[in-house]
Amino acid sequence: DRLTHIDSTGDARMVDVTAKPVSARQARATGFVEVSPKVVELLRGEGMPKGDALSVARIAGIMGAKKTPDLVPLCHPIAISGVKVALEVEDSGVAIAATVKTADRTGVEMEALTAVAVAGLTVIDMVKAVDPAAVLTRVQVEAKSGGVSGDWSREG
Amino acid sequence: DRLTHIDSTGDARMVDVTAKPVSARQARATGFVEVSPKVVELLRGEGMPKGDALSVARIAGIMGAKKTPDLVPLCHPIAISGVKVALEVEDSGVAIAATVKTADRTGVEMEALTAVAVAGLTVIDMVKAVDPAAVLTRVQVEAKSGGVSGDWSREG
Amino acid sequence: DRLTHIDSTGDARMVDVTAKPVSARQARATGFVEVSPKVVELLRGEGMPKGDALSVARIAGIMGAKKTPDLVPLCHPIAISGVKVALEVEDSGVAIAATVKTADRTGVEMEALTAVAVAGLTVIDMVKAVDPAAVLTRVQVEAKSGGVSGDWSREG
Amino acid sequence: DRLTHIDSTGDARMVDVTAKPVSARQARATGFVEVSPKVVELLRGEGMPKGDALSVARIAGIMGAKKTPDLVPLCHPIAISGVKVALEVEDSGVAIAATVKTADRTGVEMEALTAVAVAGLTVIDMVKAVDPAAVLTRVQVEAKSGGVSGDWSREG
Amino acid sequence: DRLTHIDSTGDARMVDVTAKPVSARQARATGFVEVSPKVVELLRGEGMPKGDALSVARIAGIMGAKKTPDLVPLCHPIAISGVKVALEVEDSGVAIAATVKTADRTGVEMEALTAVAVAGLTVIDMVKAVDPAAVLTRVQVEAKSGGVSGDWSREG
Amino acid sequence: DRLTHIDSTGDARMVDVTAKPVSARQARATGFVEVSPKVVELLRGEGMPKGDALSVARIAGIMGAKKTPDLVPLCHPIAISGVKVALEVEDSGVAIAATVKTADRTGVEMEALTAVAVAGLTVIDMVKAVDPAAVLTRVQVEAKSGGVSGDWSREG
Repeated sequence: DRLTHIDSTGDARMVDVTAKPVSARQARATGFVEVSPKVVELLRGEGMPKGDALSVARIAGIMGAKKTPDLVPLCHPIAISGVKVALEVEDSGVAIAATVKTADRTGVEMEALTAVAVAGLTVIDMVKAVDPAAVLTRVQVEAKSGGVSGDWSREG
Repeated sequence: DRLTHIDSTGDARMVDVTAKPVSARQARATGFVEVSPKVVELLRGEGMPKGDALSVARIAGIMGAKKTPDLVPLCHPIAISGVKVALEVEDSGVAIAATVKTADRTGVEMEALTAVAVAGLTVIDMVKAVDPAAVLTRVQVEAKSGGVSGDWSREG
Repeated sequence: DRLTHIDSTGDARMVDVTAKPVSARQARATGFVEVSPKVVELLRGEGMPKGDALSVARIAGIMGAKKTPDLVPLCHPIAISGVKVALEVEDSGVAIAATVKTADRTGVEMEALTAVAVAGLTVIDMVKAVDPAAVLTRVQVEAKSGGVSGDWSREG
Repeated sequence: DRLTHIDSTGDARMVDVTAKPVSARQARATGFVEVSPKVVELLRGEGMPKGDALSVARIAGIMGAKKTPDLVPLCHPIAISGVKVALEVEDSGVAIAATVKTADRTGVEMEALTAVAVAGLTVIDMVKAVDPAAVLTRVQVEAKSGGVSGDWSREG
Repeated sequence: DRLTHIDSTGDARMVDVTAKPVSARQARATGFVEVSPKVVELLRGEGMPKGDALSVARIAGIMGAKKTPDLVPLCHPIAISGVKVALEVEDSGVAIAATVKTADRTGVEMEALTAVAVAGLTVIDMVKAVDPAAVLTRVQVEAKSGGVSGDWSREG
Repeated sequence: DRLTHIDSTGDARMVDVTAKPVSARQARATGFVEVSPKVVELLRGEGMPKGDALSVARIAGIMGAKKTPDLVPLCHPIAISGVKVALEVEDSGVAIAATVKTADRTGVEMEALTAVAVAGLTVIDMVKAVDPAAVLTRVQVEAKSGGVSGDWSREG
């Protein structure tokens, strides 16, 4: 076991995937934004229209997936072929899930994680005037499939 | 209390800060990447050079701060005047802290949070071949100061 | 009268505004997307939820305003301090209006026009599977104010 | 008929095209910038060199095509394989036409429209000091070919 | 003397300039692209229209200046207030000079150097099918003025 | 021999490569940053930790390769499948070499050159407070292979 993104002398590099086959792959990631009860009320539209609140985060997440190679230095630019971001208001905050698909030479775990993180940051931005203590937490891959390294899921 | 980024009909907008004074502001945010003991060993350079591993995440975090208005739809473009990102390898993972400064019309909490999130995503990217279960958690503002809305810190 | 963005030898340049004072400015632009009656029905949510359809365009417009200096080669990067994008479904299509504000050294007409154009392109993207003949039309500045060159409005 | 970019609950998503075959596709779009007679004179180089005026718009259009997935939230990143942008000064303004080609899983109508819109915005930027009333109008797809959904042209 | 971008423990950071005053500053940089005699002929328009060849590089240089904080990790985002890029075809290649101005808290040497480098890369891209051996050389600051650190010029 | 990026009327365009086959390709480019003896000492870590100094440039180079189509107007967006950037401190400065790989329809010379140029600009940014006279020089392709146009190397 070693860090694949670091060569034997310790230098960072973008791993060479030229010889890997193009194949259909997908990854699913989740996260959660903890917010105050007052924010939960506002996001549920109690007392005033919630309007675009969750739409902004959903769209930010989709656009965020496309920006992954701009953000994560050693990620390959990748032909994303589908993105879905779901946000659900729960009693203690907002649950976020993102599924990203591709037909390319590497997996899309980072794209799914980035979609979740950017959607989560956007939720915090929307609510921070009301709840400056909001927290983005548990951003993690749930499952990935396709490609040569085999399928993986958090549940095992 | 209401969601400032949503107008009375529910439409998203970038809040008008034209009339707010330019003032020195700063924000500090933190987060944590939980990784396996094996990854902790690798990040500590046991058995092979850790080399650029943490440097990549630190630089990604700094560059991520600058990309905040590209990622978070309703954030203002802002004149960031200083960024510091620190990563510390602990027994259960990597602690991340970012401080962002500006002399502008709005605060830099989102920039500090984005720096932490992007650094955290980059850590996950570096280690995911060894530990696909790594988790980015507790991304949160610790303190902010400057500007008209007053200082705030998580501790109170 | 001459083209200010071209010097006396015909070379393009970004005009020097270093000596211009920072002042509050704003601009308002409008445009219209002509779509089929079927699309008007869908955008009004008849028969199925219209959901995010107009939200996506509104958010794209706001983000588009921030990208103006990346798109229009000779535009200055500018400290946008407020953006509002409104979309209205009418019988023959979608009316778009954008207002952009700044406290900077140049005006924000291009930012307002870019917000309208990007919102309009996004509407076309949303509806093109149903109406490939949709047209973005009449993208124009309605009024601008602030700055040394004086106020202007289309009405005179 | 429904809005493909919105799922059954109204949420926006990037449509899944993973299973679509890679094929050669192209799209052609046009638009027009209405300007004053004075601007037409300047763009024709009467009295002073027109120089880079139209070159700036042509290059902005080509670069704009590449930025489509950054601008239009639900567009797929796509492997553009050719772009041509033509500008023609006519008596009442500037006619713009763009042709974009790809070998990928989705069409390039949005890329062609974006090229036209960005070229048009750039023309307005060049001339706005002389003619603040310039209008970008009739941005529309003329024809597309390739892919599974069949060829389409405005003429029928 | 020390590397200002590295703190006392060796970590990179974006230097804090919050307390520095806004002031008018400018920088001038130059570079040279060595090309074959055949390319010099083509760039001079002998035998066929040179057309947009140098315009593309000039515009790329201007746009490149605006992208400096996206490219150079520790550069501050900066309010560029003017850019001029000049290209001159000489007997052994293309001489490039860029002048960048700002009214901000840091200097614009990196912006001027980036404008030159991007213009130079673009020249190489234009000519590489004819001369794959083209070289971008001597990219350097010639002079800078304004700001607290005093004026500097290569000549002394 | 002609400039392929300019059509017969002199207009710039992105060359149509739709019909070219996808194939494995790579390119190697080099460059050199001349710095003062004092900077060489600092970069070698004499007297204080050199820390991230070269890491920042290496990572900037890798990320720069991915930004090539954003910077060089007529470059195709390309599926980069591997990037390696090496920096070596020598007695008179820093030698930079970049290797870029792809499996796509065009070559990656521009990506390799851009990686070198951006790494070199970043070195200058790191050292400019100590040595404002630093020079980026000899940015050039060393070799390329793959694709239909055949292999090429500077040595012949």
